[in-house]
Amino acid sequence: MIITKTIKIKAKEGEYLDITEQVQNCVSDSKLKNGAVTVFVVGSTGAVSTIEYEPGLLKDVPGALEKLAPSNEDYEHNKTWGCDNGYSHVRATLLGPSLTVPIVDEKLTLGTWQQIVFMNFDTRDREREIVLQMMGE
Amino acid sequence: MIITKTIKIKAKEGEYLDITEQVQNCVSDSKLKNGAVTVFVVGSTGAVSTIEYEPGLLKDVPGALEKLAPSNEDYEHNKTWGCDNGYSHVRATLLGPSLTVPIVDEKLTLGTWQQIVFMNFDTRDREREIVLQMMGE
Amino acid sequence: MIITKTIKIKAKEGEYLDITEQVQNCVSDSKLKNGAVTVFVVGSTGAVSTIEYEPGLLKDVPGALEKLAPSNEDYEHNKTWGCDNGYSHVRATLLGPSLTVPIVDEKLTLGTWQQIVFMNFDTRDREREIVLQMMGE
Repeated sequence: MIITKTIKIKAKEGEYLDITEQVQNCVSDSKLKNGAVTVFVVGSTGAVSTIEYEPGLLKDVPGALEKLAPSNEDYEHNKTWGCDNGYSHVRATLLGPSLTVPIVDEKLTLGTWQQIVFMNFDTRDREREIVLQMMGE
Repeated sequence: MIITKTIKIKAKEGEYLDITEQVQNCVSDSKLKNGAVTVFVVGSTGAVSTIEYEPGLLKDVPGALEKLAPSNEDYEHNKTWGCDNGYSHVRATLLGPSLTVPIVDEKLTLGTWQQIVFMNFDTRDREREIVLQMMGE
Repeated sequence: MIITKTIKIKAKEGEYLDITEQVQNCVSDSKLKNGAVTVFVVGSTGAVSTIEYEPGLLKDVPGALEKLAPSNEDYEHNKTWGCDNGYSHVRATLLGPSLTVPIVDEKLTLGTWQQIVFMNFDTRDREREIVLQMMGE
């Protein structure tokens, strides 16, 4: 069985959102007992991963990314297109748009302190589509 | 249904290639209506992700990786094996060899400005195998 | 067919372990001919990727991560919770907990010099669960 759900997320500039409950709800609605869900970010300035979703790390992770792809640097992307989100694209490519999580007994196999996080790296508020592709039986 | 395709890619030293069309063509040929494709890079000096494939970012992403794993540094890998591609391996491990993209109505669910990119981090031209594992119905 | 296996891994502080053989053994036991296996790290201080598993790179990759998320920095996570593994969490989020590898003719489609590596970024020895979700026919 294959079930597709598209969730729409409003995210502020640089916001990291815990989407675990939304993903788990879609999995529960799907009636799949076992399988996997691929969480896929449509667009090239956002990414998905897992994190212990707490206020400290919501500063620490952006802090590390600020070293890797600083927001105030000159990017060729910005020069070419007259925009300001070169660093957003770089971060998105390095982290990647997809995550696959197993489903066992109707539940995501996440740890207690492990949440699914959508990261909007863009320089403005965005509404983003995230495709959940659930496969299993 | 499970359909496997292996595509062979010739990539120059440090080249980033847009393989979206090749992946979409394989998906179309597979006749799958819904499912997912896993794009998997065979080898340990290349990676796959998504990007807005345009000339600016093709300089910006390598620029960020040059900070993270500089090409001119001394790597233990190089000292041990007498080679020069330690940084290529480091970049490949950090970015990862696999990407899973949903297929909905026979199409990859990519954004308009989001392409699938194969990154050859190696220090010489390589022919690389990329396995496309398509599953669905 | 969907087959789930959970493997338990004892990993020392900062240890990187080659789990290729364990994953391949589970795939072989599953009797799947074609499909894919998702390797998923339960918890938020570890990650999975592929690497040429040799002693040089086992120093080079941690070396690059030490620049990206230094172990001796002040992290908000540490200040908030009185712990010392802020950098472990940051590294885990940046690398990601999941990897999907195609199975073709009962074998993982890895390159000769490409192994599956579990990275325990945590500051103490951990026993970790890794879920292998195998799907195929």
